[in-house]
Amino acid sequence: MQRFKITLQYDGTNYHGWQIQARDITIQGILEDALYKITGSRDRITGAARTDAGVHALQQVAAFSSPASLDPQTLMRALNANIPEDIRLIASDYADADFHPRYSARKKRYTYLITVPGPFSVMISKYSWPVRGDLDISAMKEAARMMTGRHDFTSFRASGCSAKSPVRDVDSIEIARSDYVDFMNFRFDAPVVRISVTARSFLRHMVRNIVGTLVDVGKGSTAPEVIPDMIKAKDRSAAGKTAPANGLFLEKIEY
Amino acid sequence: MQRFKITLQYDGTNYHGWQIQARDITIQGILEDALYKITGSRDRITGAARTDAGVHALQQVAAFSSPASLDPQTLMRALNANIPEDIRLIASDYADADFHPRYSARKKRYTYLITVPGPFSVMISKYSWPVRGDLDISAMKEAARMMTGRHDFTSFRASGCSAKSPVRDVDSIEIARSDYVDFMNFRFDAPVVRISVTARSFLRHMVRNIVGTLVDVGKGSTAPEVIPDMIKAKDRSAAGKTAPANGLFLEKIEY
Repeated sequence: MQRFKITLQYDGTNYHGWQIQARDITIQGILEDALYKITGSRDRITGAARTDAGVHALQQVAAFSSPASLDPQTLMRALNANIPEDIRLIASDYADADFHPRYSARKKRYTYLITVPGPFSVMISKYSWPVRGDLDISAMKEAARMMTGRHDFTSFRASGCSAKSPVRDVDSIEIARSDYVDFMNFRFDAPVVRISVTARSFLRHMVRNIVGTLVDVGKGSTAPEVIPDMIKAKDRSAAGKTAPANGLFLEKIEY
Repeated sequence: MQRFKITLQYDGTNYHGWQIQARDITIQGILEDALYKITGSRDRITGAARTDAGVHALQQVAAFSSPASLDPQTLMRALNANIPEDIRLIASDYADADFHPRYSARKKRYTYLITVPGPFSVMISKYSWPVRGDLDISAMKEAARMMTGRHDFTSFRASGCSAKSPVRDVDSIEIARSDYVDFMNFRFDAPVVRISVTARSFLRHMVRNIVGTLVDVGKGSTAPEVIPDMIKAKDRSAAGKTAPANGLFLEKIEY
């Protein structure tokens, strides 16, 4: 058996997320079917992040062990020829037998895009969350500072999350506002707020729940000062609602 | 009857183009169904441009006459509530009874995006034509100069084009290269060539056939000097092949 590490990009719009499901079309399901078609062997492909339905990936990493004696480049071409255009392998390598895309990862970075509803590009709404009204960025930054570090993130964890511990170390939450969005080098006068969260690992829906809460803070309906209590509550209903999936991008994974 | 002018954006990926068809899902078909649902009256919605299957619009204009006594803003909200998210009305106004989105247009601008295949964003390939190898931009500009002006564009016209005359006035063909693509403000080191064609009106597939021919020139397989003969031939097989639809954006219409 040879172990392979593959790096992927995908537009999550048309998929029910990473994780294989009995009925719905998923990235993992598509990749495992394509691999089976190529090698004749049904092998589990493990992803670094189990992105939700509708979430995009600019850089997802996955790994699998295969009895096939293909070199990584041939394998990449063969997989790309057998999967839809909106999922692409962009790199492929041999990996050590003990390489695990999730456990071996040092850092993952997600970026979430918030725009405003308005006469802007359909494409911009497709890849962001249009939120009505101005957001108070400095209040959001203050709230983000209080979420950074090691915390029990139970209040920001979806039911059905399979992680053993609800404690996570958030390295940073960066928030930046821009007056325009460049889409394929077309410029739109559409304000955009970008929230980037970096951590070694995340709980289910954690980034989207952090973003939903930060938007409440930005709107003034939640004061930044209540964040510590929100965390201490260890109760999902204490935090804000889940931001929609289509604004979320898995941006980078470091090993 | 009141005449309305609506301005639209759409992501063409999931549609069989503008023009209504018996079997396939089209932008015009979706809009007319939504209008019928709102007003109870089946009215023809005429577009400024009959974009092909897969072509996007940053600004498409359409018009219709309706017996409904709705104001334009209410109408816009009602239509947007009854059509998919990847088609949006971004403006809505009353129009003069004789307003025709196609015949009244002074200028239309299409922009085509050419990238290179490679480890770039899936989204970039989705909204552009990945072409292998370097393109000679100055040769392309020379060829473009010879296509500009009034010509019989039969060599660049798809079979099935319903226009009475094959003569069109091309105001300008601009070609520019950039070293990067900004997608939702994520920057990718992906070279992109942008071709913008402006004219009062176009023949069917004309922009895509111009782009296909310019790419042949950029690759060196067609010399810019043969363009005048290509035009004179008045034969579709004399020009280059049709560039794929997904790289084409209807960018702007002036009245």
